[in-house]
Amino acid sequence: MGNKVGIYYAYWTHDWDADFVPYLEKVRRLGFDVLEINAGTIARLGRDARQRLADAAREAEISMSCCIGLPPSSDLASPERAVRAEGVRHLNRIADAMVDCGIDRLTGIIYSCWPGALEGRPGGKKAAWDWSVASMKEAVKKGEDLGLTYNVEVVNRFEQFILNTAAEAVSYVQQVGSSCLRILLDTYHMNIEEESFSSALQNTGNLLGHLHIGENNRMPPGRGHIPWDEIGSALRRIGYTGWVVMEPFLVPGGEVGRDIRVHRELMPGTDLDQEARRACAFTRSFLGEPAAATS
Amino acid sequence: MGNKVGIYYAYWTHDWDADFVPYLEKVRRLGFDVLEINAGTIARLGRDARQRLADAAREAEISMSCCIGLPPSSDLASPERAVRAEGVRHLNRIADAMVDCGIDRLTGIIYSCWPGALEGRPGGKKAAWDWSVASMKEAVKKGEDLGLTYNVEVVNRFEQFILNTAAEAVSYVQQVGSSCLRILLDTYHMNIEEESFSSALQNTGNLLGHLHIGENNRMPPGRGHIPWDEIGSALRRIGYTGWVVMEPFLVPGGEVGRDIRVHRELMPGTDLDQEARRACAFTRSFLGEPAAATS
Repeated sequence: MGNKVGIYYAYWTHDWDADFVPYLEKVRRLGFDVLEINAGTIARLGRDARQRLADAAREAEISMSCCIGLPPSSDLASPERAVRAEGVRHLNRIADAMVDCGIDRLTGIIYSCWPGALEGRPGGKKAAWDWSVASMKEAVKKGEDLGLTYNVEVVNRFEQFILNTAAEAVSYVQQVGSSCLRILLDTYHMNIEEESFSSALQNTGNLLGHLHIGENNRMPPGRGHIPWDEIGSALRRIGYTGWVVMEPFLVPGGEVGRDIRVHRELMPGTDLDQEARRACAFTRSFLGEPAAATS
Repeated sequence: MGNKVGIYYAYWTHDWDADFVPYLEKVRRLGFDVLEINAGTIARLGRDARQRLADAAREAEISMSCCIGLPPSSDLASPERAVRAEGVRHLNRIADAMVDCGIDRLTGIIYSCWPGALEGRPGGKKAAWDWSVASMKEAVKKGEDLGLTYNVEVVNRFEQFILNTAAEAVSYVQQVGSSCLRILLDTYHMNIEEESFSSALQNTGNLLGHLHIGENNRMPPGRGHIPWDEIGSALRRIGYTGWVVMEPFLVPGGEVGRDIRVHRELMPGTDLDQEARRACAFTRSFLGEPAAATS
């Protein structure tokens, strides 16, 4: 059984908010199985708009996952009780939206906020960690009830301070102790923080619930120096059957370029659709899929 | 002719300011040729203290280079003329201090400030770039007169927005057009932004004036997944005869841990001196030095 391969919508957008419907047909045409969308956006949609999205995904035969970096007003690791409570409520609102949209997995910086700095936090990392674990124990209840999976994303030191390594995420998930909670690793962040891609994947093992892929400079897979064959082998060794979603960012400007710190055109003149199609085929190839293996 | 191998003092300190004298004898004992120190600190020292440092370095037979990330008050890329002028004056003060200390090469984020964000800059990256080039054309005059080398450091997107790639630095140095100005590449930053280590080194060629080395997560060389053999080969291919200075950071806390975003103990329980000695031998080994090649 192969892994489903997906792409994050913001590859094409300058804003974090978007109408995701047109991207469903587009990614199907380019060879993907999954579109990952913004969890914050669907939480703000009405029931009708959620239904329209669910219907369009079913029609296009595209699965959806959703991702968020929580805003500071919903920081589950905040020293302020009211902010932590709002974080839990925000995750609960997202859970309801996911069910309406037919989505079963949430990913991202759902344990604190994005970006999240250590400075000015009373009690430092230890206190923030403990507040986050306690808040997450509350938040996962609804996820468990609804049969959803929440995946905590391990990111580089410039974007967050709580979970920078797979080992930290394993410890965090064990402390929360919920069948709802798993780990999202991302090759872009792993490249900055992990001593070894394969050891990190191996040590995460069956706690790996979702995988983001991208080159060392956030180009689509196959354009930089990430060791894709090593990663493919490690995924097969741990028997990973989850989804593999690329999150490339090539274009400066807008909210997206600003927040991802895209300060240059990474592939000037590139046809984004054609490049996504190539990267999808490349990904199936290093995952060891039998069909559509070459670009 | 081998490359001199060095280490940055802040591997051992929690503060950016330090008395560098004790580190000269220490790094000699551990096998290094070079101690890299803080250019901001020596600019604030009196003549006597600078003389004492120069004498101690001569006595220990250790060469020194100096490094700075300019503060926002000395931002050569600022839209404010007074700030840019202060940046040039700051570099001139550093140049005088370098001569007093017997130092001939300056490295770091000397073309803007550290950290330096794009947000709120009128005219965006293009305007900042042009202001920086114009300011640098002023600043290099004193460097040329004194026979110094200024090396602009290419860093990752989270720390600066002007020079994120070797290609950008080559273009910048060509625009300034001074024999004083060269490029500092750093394997830690290259790992995040360059498609290929060897292509970046090759394309920098004889404009490479200084090299910082460190693992992908800022551990000492040999502990992570940076491709050291590829880097050694590329350096030999371009005939690099400059210095190779490691800049490891392992310990959270203090100004240094905060600014480098060290959010965890990277090598708990490590004897820092013993680890530096190992990393020095490892570095000579991948540089292809005949002696002292094994750890």
